[in-house]
Amino acid sequence: MITEKLDLAFVAARLEGFEETIITRLIDRAQFCANEIVYKNGLSGFKGENQLSLFTIRLTQQEQMDARFGRFCVPEERPFTKDLPVPQRIVSLSDTGLKIINCNVISQVNDILSSYLDLIPRICSKEDDGQYGSSVEHDVYAIQAIARRIHYGSLYVAECKYMNTPDEYRMLIKEKNTEALVELLTRKDVEDKIIIRIREKAASVQACVNKLVRKVIDPEQIANYYRDWIIPLTKKGEIAYLLNRLNV
Amino acid sequence: MITEKLDLAFVAARLEGFEETIITRLIDRAQFCANEIVYKNGLSGFKGENQLSLFTIRLTQQEQMDARFGRFCVPEERPFTKDLPVPQRIVSLSDTGLKIINCNVISQVNDILSSYLDLIPRICSKEDDGQYGSSVEHDVYAIQAIARRIHYGSLYVAECKYMNTPDEYRMLIKEKNTEALVELLTRKDVEDKIIIRIREKAASVQACVNKLVRKVIDPEQIANYYRDWIIPLTKKGEIAYLLNRLNV
Repeated sequence: MITEKLDLAFVAARLEGFEETIITRLIDRAQFCANEIVYKNGLSGFKGENQLSLFTIRLTQQEQMDARFGRFCVPEERPFTKDLPVPQRIVSLSDTGLKIINCNVISQVNDILSSYLDLIPRICSKEDDGQYGSSVEHDVYAIQAIARRIHYGSLYVAECKYMNTPDEYRMLIKEKNTEALVELLTRKDVEDKIIIRIREKAASVQACVNKLVRKVIDPEQIANYYRDWIIPLTKKGEIAYLLNRLNV
Repeated sequence: MITEKLDLAFVAARLEGFEETIITRLIDRAQFCANEIVYKNGLSGFKGENQLSLFTIRLTQQEQMDARFGRFCVPEERPFTKDLPVPQRIVSLSDTGLKIINCNVISQVNDILSSYLDLIPRICSKEDDGQYGSSVEHDVYAIQAIARRIHYGSLYVAECKYMNTPDEYRMLIKEKNTEALVELLTRKDVEDKIIIRIREKAASVQACVNKLVRKVIDPEQIANYYRDWIIPLTKKGEIAYLLNRLNV
């Protein structure tokens, strides 16, 4: 299991498998209007919650439930919420082969959150349709899918690349030479291919849609989000992993 | 808003819009093995829950959260769980135009649940991959999407058809002539079209998938599930609506 997980081709394939989920989650969210009010603090209309936004309340409650089910025992599942309850079940994890103690050091949740909120008005109609509950429900599913992809890549891509040329990485890690590490990690041709593939998939999954009843997202928006956020944040996470890797 | 909602073409289009969601939810679930143990009572491994299955625990906790957010104020959102908490927010619903007091009379949740559990081994690999938390998480999303479609159809298709030929329906409702009502509601050509469309969509959304990393479902399985369950249960719900319609 370890050898499989720490093979770069396998990891890249897993990352590719996450793409459909991210795309369909964003499309599902876009079936509702932007509904800006759901992101505004103090306007949730939720009894006993006067400070937070409806979105934050939903995200928090979802993650509290998920935490009880053990979601955050999985290295690539990093929570947006602090002080979560302990798991109520034992999550059996095969040895991941990762060399890290605290997976939260690779967390990119703040940037994921802000970039996602920026994306919403670009994929949803600007209006307010009153569907606040459904909007935040789908927000949470979308943001969880995005975070899983970024954190999975941060951990496993970095470990695979380290293992392929440990001496090179070891030197740069010891120097804390972030810039050179970024360069060593980057494969521009692979990134370009991902972006093209995302554009194609986003078009393909919407090909048979009845546009009278289902909003279609511009595939370019999802491709750009990958280019501007998902790929760079994955790299940031990879750097964080490498700088915190044990036994360098 | 009422006139729009109670137009049969609009309602049919909404039902069509639900199809992608159902299909992608089932595909997402099928990325994990069947993991039969998650449906077995008493084997959840969830602290303090010795009787229920992990699936039931997840469904219950999800619906408890959803209830607090007001999901079940929406007529087509019928819960699988009893004794849910009251909503913590006011859900603004435009007048639906439905002529019914208690929407739960149209609920088909028992049949939805058992038919869904039957479907799982037909779309998932038979093995056990240990991914129990993810399996039940995706089960809940899939079953909620299926239930929404069935209950939306039960309410709005029935009301539209009643409004189109009220005299005919009125007579049969007064006689409680279920058989004749089924006949009057049924449009075999429309049903056939839906099933063909489902088969096509299920193939189309999976067209660009990398089969090395993502399991592909046989489109026939989803089409058959529509034919054998989703369409018949919607009709059962329509009958229930008509027999409970106010001011017949």
